[in-house]
Amino acid sequence: MAFRHLACALGDDAVLGPGSDLSAYEDPYSFGMTEEFRASGAVLPRSVEEVQAVLAIANQHGVPLWTISLGRNLGYGGAAPRVSGSIVLDLRRLNRILEVNEEHAYALVEPGVSFFDLYEHIRERGLRLWISSPALGWGSVVGNALERGVGRTPYGDHAAQICGLEVVLANGDVVRTGMGALPCANTWQLFKGGYGPSLDGLFMQSNFGVVTKMGLWLMPQPQGLMSCLVRFQKESDLAAAVDALGPLRRQEVIQSNAQVGSILHQVVGRYPRARWYDGPGAIPDPVLEQIRQDLGLEWWSLRFALYGEENMLDARFEIVRRAFSMIRGAEILCQKHVASGADGLYAWELEGAAAHDAGVPSVSSLDVVKFRGEDGGHLDFSPIIAPTGREAVRAYRHVMARAREHGIDYVGSFTAGVRHLRHVFMIVYDKRDAEQKRGAADLFGILVKEMGQEGIGEYRAHLAFMDLIRGEYCFNDHAIRRFSETLKDALDPNGILSPGKQGIWPRTFRTERSP
Amino acid sequence: MAFRHLACALGDDAVLGPGSDLSAYEDPYSFGMTEEFRASGAVLPRSVEEVQAVLAIANQHGVPLWTISLGRNLGYGGAAPRVSGSIVLDLRRLNRILEVNEEHAYALVEPGVSFFDLYEHIRERGLRLWISSPALGWGSVVGNALERGVGRTPYGDHAAQICGLEVVLANGDVVRTGMGALPCANTWQLFKGGYGPSLDGLFMQSNFGVVTKMGLWLMPQPQGLMSCLVRFQKESDLAAAVDALGPLRRQEVIQSNAQVGSILHQVVGRYPRARWYDGPGAIPDPVLEQIRQDLGLEWWSLRFALYGEENMLDARFEIVRRAFSMIRGAEILCQKHVASGADGLYAWELEGAAAHDAGVPSVSSLDVVKFRGEDGGHLDFSPIIAPTGREAVRAYRHVMARAREHGIDYVGSFTAGVRHLRHVFMIVYDKRDAEQKRGAADLFGILVKEMGQEGIGEYRAHLAFMDLIRGEYCFNDHAIRRFSETLKDALDPNGILSPGKQGIWPRTFRTERSP
Repeated sequence: MAFRHLACALGDDAVLGPGSDLSAYEDPYSFGMTEEFRASGAVLPRSVEEVQAVLAIANQHGVPLWTISLGRNLGYGGAAPRVSGSIVLDLRRLNRILEVNEEHAYALVEPGVSFFDLYEHIRERGLRLWISSPALGWGSVVGNALERGVGRTPYGDHAAQICGLEVVLANGDVVRTGMGALPCANTWQLFKGGYGPSLDGLFMQSNFGVVTKMGLWLMPQPQGLMSCLVRFQKESDLAAAVDALGPLRRQEVIQSNAQVGSILHQVVGRYPRARWYDGPGAIPDPVLEQIRQDLGLEWWSLRFALYGEENMLDARFEIVRRAFSMIRGAEILCQKHVASGADGLYAWELEGAAAHDAGVPSVSSLDVVKFRGEDGGHLDFSPIIAPTGREAVRAYRHVMARAREHGIDYVGSFTAGVRHLRHVFMIVYDKRDAEQKRGAADLFGILVKEMGQEGIGEYRAHLAFMDLIRGEYCFNDHAIRRFSETLKDALDPNGILSPGKQGIWPRTFRTERSP
Repeated sequence: MAFRHLACALGDDAVLGPGSDLSAYEDPYSFGMTEEFRASGAVLPRSVEEVQAVLAIANQHGVPLWTISLGRNLGYGGAAPRVSGSIVLDLRRLNRILEVNEEHAYALVEPGVSFFDLYEHIRERGLRLWISSPALGWGSVVGNALERGVGRTPYGDHAAQICGLEVVLANGDVVRTGMGALPCANTWQLFKGGYGPSLDGLFMQSNFGVVTKMGLWLMPQPQGLMSCLVRFQKESDLAAAVDALGPLRRQEVIQSNAQVGSILHQVVGRYPRARWYDGPGAIPDPVLEQIRQDLGLEWWSLRFALYGEENMLDARFEIVRRAFSMIRGAEILCQKHVASGADGLYAWELEGAAAHDAGVPSVSSLDVVKFRGEDGGHLDFSPIIAPTGREAVRAYRHVMARAREHGIDYVGSFTAGVRHLRHVFMIVYDKRDAEQKRGAADLFGILVKEMGQEGIGEYRAHLAFMDLIRGEYCFNDHAIRRFSETLKDALDPNGILSPGKQGIWPRTFRTERSP
């Protein structure tokens, strides 16, 4: 019935009902729990009015929707819904770039706009703006920012660049946040505050509404860029590397997310594991050392870039160089790119690491899963850690030890924000190997629990672990969950919007919570 | 009855009931509507548990509370409640500095902590951290940040430095946001995101809960500081000044709030108006010119500072100098302060403008109201404007013209954030002069309405204008108000917490909304 109503309201071509090919809405990197996260169909509205129509029908039928922008949340479940039987509310057709303002350096986009789309739009017009793309550029700008994704430019904390949302609430009401609530205001994308409570954050990693427009600050293109690589020769250099980074990030000498990657982090996406090892368990240390020598890799590889006019680049570099020169054996390599004209450095003039550092989107990192063969998948464990060498080493040792026990390779990186480290441990597996997949899931669950007990929590999670992780955030007998669910019930009494997302369940579906 | 219960629960000394001196809870700069904003008493809890007890009693009696931190919201109503008869929930006794972390550069404070308190704490311990104080340092760090106050350092967008809150909800539940929901986490003040929706923003300019602890990022003290003043000689230079500032702020060459002040903005706080003019109406142009010549003032005065190591200061200054040298007649004056040792520049080693630029608190600006005599008051009109010369001039001309018509002097400034201007027009009046006060209120109401029609809205407001301004944010038939009040009713069904704040009314008090 719901599907028939949806087709009546939006047209047949906007609805994928039972019997349709729904493979696009399965988790591409499923690890054996696929049955639990299976959509019953999908609906693809073309406008805010059609989103409203979908919500009205979902309310009428009590059918849960699962909202996606482009559904590229890889490693976290892709486009699949938390509750089986949900209809995916697929926003890919809301794909307009409504405004790119060069003077004030912002964009207003719909959820169907990918990083490639936005980049091409800017490139075609020759605008002096840089975007900040995450590792994969085919995803949604809106979806990525709302899920707190990161990129490599100074605007790489994507959630922090959000300025003003348009949201359709479960009851169909359309809200504009911040200055967007003031008709005719030209400051919707300029001032985050607005008047009264700040509401943008409510819609991050959230099921409180359907975001249909998002303002995003873009980077005015700088005059210059210096791509930097610091090579560390010893496993034990992790502590020194992170300790050197801390003050440089806090003082914003380094203005962007700096990433420290392990040996295998440098190998995945370039070579298959089988080239060196095909035995049981994780790659043993001697083999790891062999890989390192074969490829001339460092133990830890630190990548970041500096931005600004040439005199600023030189000043920043001098401070950075001094900091890393204190670490024995550390080698710093830099490449400077300075604009020839006064317009600044166009991103499309750059290549390789520099293009990456300028936020140019690519899909090169898609190949990371081929580390475990053509049918590889990955699951990302993403805890937030205090930015000190001691804490990084503590997390690294813990993860490494448990990974070994489960026969899983350590492919890890630490991304340094201004005051935190985001440790991403990528569990890569062969999707055809049931044992590997079970091992991945087991390891993940153990890490969440053990590290949670030490006060380390994840910032994002695969569908299968949303409840588990939510459960770790249990101060005052789960006060944050109680609070969030009070809001949820007030805003979405029928519980139609993405029930279970990040462990927030509406009253109507609360029994579905994982024990 | 409520007072008796409060005294039973908290002790007599924690309650000011009927008959007590409640002058501390009156608007010190009241402009003739005092009767409407009169507290019936106050309660001063000492702990979170006592806050919970107060809320329980208020719920039981259906008595509205009006939460203040230190109540120094001058120009916006001070400590006075929106609804007469409210009991002021005065949090001054929650005044612990729970942590100041030098390594990670943050503080965790309670609402009763003033900028002076925090500064002295840091100074006594010799910590290498700077705070960012607003114009008046006696106010609450928590209250100011939640109300979106600003200071002059690179951390001067105080709301943007908030990282993690503890909030007591109307039902007494205690919630910790972000990583604070994870027991034992050492990242509560390090990562703003947490897991799931970001909730900190909900409690800004809000009546959704009582904030009892707040994390705030502090600035690692830099090696150097350059205090800069740019003097503009012509009234028409405003456009060029703002246009030059825009790119410098967006590119973060200038890292902090830069303030452009009018002639009288430079005079208030230093001299009484009567020294030059005591006639009817606003100070006429020839007198304004006389003042300018007498004091050797510029038409517009731009103040900001640069921060960092000496090579960074020099690089920044070179770019800034180049930008302003394009403006005819503009004169740039700078004073550089560089630390003698590797510890960086201690704020307490600085004086005058440099101390201000280093966030050192003071109360020197208290005297601004003496511009209209010993019994002066002020009311601040604070619209948000796009950061272009054209928009600044449009706002300036509009405000100036209407101010003249009402016989009110233009005391104005434009503070340049990264992508917006905050225009603060300070209406200074003699509190003993009923006509001046009426004129101030009339002018304010006219400006809100007229500028609102042009898409310009205020970020903050005096009690008397909260509903008026809320009404201007009316997109989709007041969707933002409807949304906010849905949350309000869910979180505070009895409507006990600060009803009417920023125009958000609980169901139980909705009839009190100004027409």
